[in-house]
Amino acid sequence: MTTERAVIGVTGLGVMGRNLARNFARHGYPVAVHNRTEAKTKALIEQFGAEGEFLPAETPEAFVASLARPRKIVIMVKAGASTDAVIEEFAPLLEPGDILVDGGNAHFADTRRREKALRERGVHFVGTGISGGEQGALEGPSIMPGGSREAYEHLGPILEDIAAKVDGVPCCAYVGPDGAGHFVKMVHNGIEYADMQLIAEAYDTLRQGAGMSPAQIAEVFRVWNTGRLESYLIEITTVVLSHRDAATGKPFVDVVLDQAEQKGTGRWTVQTALDLGVPVSGIAEAVFARSLSGHAGMREEARVLPGPSGDGLESSFADDVEQALYASKVVAYAQGFNEIQAGSAEYGWDIDLGAMATIWRGGCIIRARFLDRIRAAYEADPGVPTLLADASFADELSRAQRAWRDVTVAAARRGVPAPGFSSSLAYYDALRAERLPAALIQGLRDYFGAHTYRRVDRDGVYHTWWELPGQPETRVDV
Amino acid sequence: MTTERAVIGVTGLGVMGRNLARNFARHGYPVAVHNRTEAKTKALIEQFGAEGEFLPAETPEAFVASLARPRKIVIMVKAGASTDAVIEEFAPLLEPGDILVDGGNAHFADTRRREKALRERGVHFVGTGISGGEQGALEGPSIMPGGSREAYEHLGPILEDIAAKVDGVPCCAYVGPDGAGHFVKMVHNGIEYADMQLIAEAYDTLRQGAGMSPAQIAEVFRVWNTGRLESYLIEITTVVLSHRDAATGKPFVDVVLDQAEQKGTGRWTVQTALDLGVPVSGIAEAVFARSLSGHAGMREEARVLPGPSGDGLESSFADDVEQALYASKVVAYAQGFNEIQAGSAEYGWDIDLGAMATIWRGGCIIRARFLDRIRAAYEADPGVPTLLADASFADELSRAQRAWRDVTVAAARRGVPAPGFSSSLAYYDALRAERLPAALIQGLRDYFGAHTYRRVDRDGVYHTWWELPGQPETRVDV
Repeated sequence: MTTERAVIGVTGLGVMGRNLARNFARHGYPVAVHNRTEAKTKALIEQFGAEGEFLPAETPEAFVASLARPRKIVIMVKAGASTDAVIEEFAPLLEPGDILVDGGNAHFADTRRREKALRERGVHFVGTGISGGEQGALEGPSIMPGGSREAYEHLGPILEDIAAKVDGVPCCAYVGPDGAGHFVKMVHNGIEYADMQLIAEAYDTLRQGAGMSPAQIAEVFRVWNTGRLESYLIEITTVVLSHRDAATGKPFVDVVLDQAEQKGTGRWTVQTALDLGVPVSGIAEAVFARSLSGHAGMREEARVLPGPSGDGLESSFADDVEQALYASKVVAYAQGFNEIQAGSAEYGWDIDLGAMATIWRGGCIIRARFLDRIRAAYEADPGVPTLLADASFADELSRAQRAWRDVTVAAARRGVPAPGFSSSLAYYDALRAERLPAALIQGLRDYFGAHTYRRVDRDGVYHTWWELPGQPETRVDV
Repeated sequence: MTTERAVIGVTGLGVMGRNLARNFARHGYPVAVHNRTEAKTKALIEQFGAEGEFLPAETPEAFVASLARPRKIVIMVKAGASTDAVIEEFAPLLEPGDILVDGGNAHFADTRRREKALRERGVHFVGTGISGGEQGALEGPSIMPGGSREAYEHLGPILEDIAAKVDGVPCCAYVGPDGAGHFVKMVHNGIEYADMQLIAEAYDTLRQGAGMSPAQIAEVFRVWNTGRLESYLIEITTVVLSHRDAATGKPFVDVVLDQAEQKGTGRWTVQTALDLGVPVSGIAEAVFARSLSGHAGMREEARVLPGPSGDGLESSFADDVEQALYASKVVAYAQGFNEIQAGSAEYGWDIDLGAMATIWRGGCIIRARFLDRIRAAYEADPGVPTLLADASFADELSRAQRAWRDVTVAAARRGVPAPGFSSSLAYYDALRAERLPAALIQGLRDYFGAHTYRRVDRDGVYHTWWELPGQPETRVDV
């Protein structure tokens, strides 16, 4: 083993860690590799050793000794207690200025805690989002690194090198201090939940509403993927819907159990948005739709509930569904970007929203042509309070709204559950409303809890003496 | 001061604590009263000393000395750090078997922590929900006590005595161990959020959709309150909508700023449901609707977005809105009760769901005739997985669904934001669906992340080799 020869190291050689190490090696970086159990290290060298320069290490000490200074170590273990265990194992071996990178799906609050603790020991801690799954890790992921700018100066060029590229621009950019990288990855995953739910509703509406077959709907998605909806998820929807089950000859989608699973990040996105006071109703509906699908007992009992008796829909309906899908997708992204904006403000991260759209264009699951538009919107006005109000999106939404309403109406009439479409439309209508019935809610709250209210015509906080009809309203903030 | 004379004590004499102490005194219980600053104690005695037997104490020591054993002390301070401070002040003065009651809106996880710590010191800690606001505290609240059964044996009769009564039955019952009482109070508040949002949507749909005036809508609510929707919130909606602003002569609801505020418990209900995997989409939409209403900047910018150009609605529309409001309300309660069920299972609380419906019939904000129906449903089948499937509710929903769909459709067509109505309808349709598009989501997840799926026709966990079209599907769990 050549001492201090490796440019970067990876510890934790599960499928994501292994592929990331291979990606470094393939780009010409001598990469140190280490795993708690040695078998995985050996397997990596045996199977893929020829792809580049790997420096296997049996012990943390040997691993650290093989790295050039400042040492750069990427931790690729299951998020949670394992991450803390690995940090505790490596931190004592490091010197001031060394860089520990956590590439797992950590909660941003954990990353903030770990970054603070390591900063006090002089070690840089970079919590980074890595999106794109196994294949992305190997061939070019979208990378969202947080931590100090100083750490990024050392680490950034390497990460940008191995990241996906779109139009020659790497899908990797410095996000912001401490937990900012994992925060943005969390919201990315929340948007992914919404994206998939909306695709599922589009499919369901076409299937149940317009009576189309999976193969016909696959063709509809194929055509959509040549337009403004062009994206990885639309592309693979075509593949999945075209697929036939070998055992039964049935459409694949008909043999799959219709209970979707959920991991932590979708849930965290909604919980965090609630803490920050950001309405991410589209993402919440997507998370709840998955959790509902898994409640087999409730669903079984609820089969007694009748649906509507309605008519079929016209054949041009697919064009309307495209409009509904696109408009709802704009809402989901607008909500997600608002959450990033709020998180950035809350934690002082100063995140460049346009740059986030840029690095999501490739490598990750939600990569889509349409992210260029978001980048353009934030370049035109970095402070735009909602993407819906960007001139270009507003124009599209105003043209989409007729069909968007029609599809939502058709789903309600036909009894097709479309919580994503209807929630997004309600969000659109609420945001643009001149007056909201929140005024009535304020009146009720003042009635039963003396919670007070503000007026439209003058400043101050007021309370009405509901039990004493003659009594004048009181200003309570003076 | 007579030593060991007081049956119960209240520390923290803000408006809620003061009224609760008066309620005890009015029911003939000698009540010890204490406040961190003495002025409030004196004011209570001066203003209300004639209502019963109050034993004022200047110090915690004197307060404790005035209580009969086992001592029963109700803490009425702002939830959070103050609660811990008061516990630390009193715990050393208590003896094994004494009972500390927290009547604030604590998070149930804090209550679990506090109960455990005090149990180890031999002191009973009872976290209890108290609903009904100032007036309820004085005249009879709905009370949801957690903690040990032993503590309830001492405390329960007193609390049941001062609680609201409906048909002679007290709105107080033992909920379950440690945090169960505060958990149920949390869900109660979440349901209250949904209730109010649905009322607001009904108002908005009638106002904007059917062009009715606030006074006309008040009359509609007045009539509704004579039927199955009879409840405190519907009743006070009539009052608020009838009210005219003295300064301008305008309907009160038109001069109130339409930005509703939110406190912790609505948010906690949704965050906890996400942890437990319970879909409470109706409550989530209500919380997000409030948070959206407060985003003045976003709303201002979004005014550029156009609405639909639609027609007015028929005059019989109000009957349809009643159906939509009622059906959506059933969904909100069903979701909330599912969360209590899940919390009870997760923490081993063994909560009697029918008893919870019983104690919410009076005293609290969501008191309603309709809670008798929920009690009956759980008495008929304590294990019913969703209230929607209870024969009696299922029958009503099946008769309501035509109008429910019509109102949702009308709101979408008219551009009236009705996220509560549409989300509840989508929940109804998703729950009763034979097949959900979650099957497609599972296919997509297997494609991009090898997340695997289950099949409808045989056991096992499967993965399709999407990149290798000829390769047969693999069973991965063997």
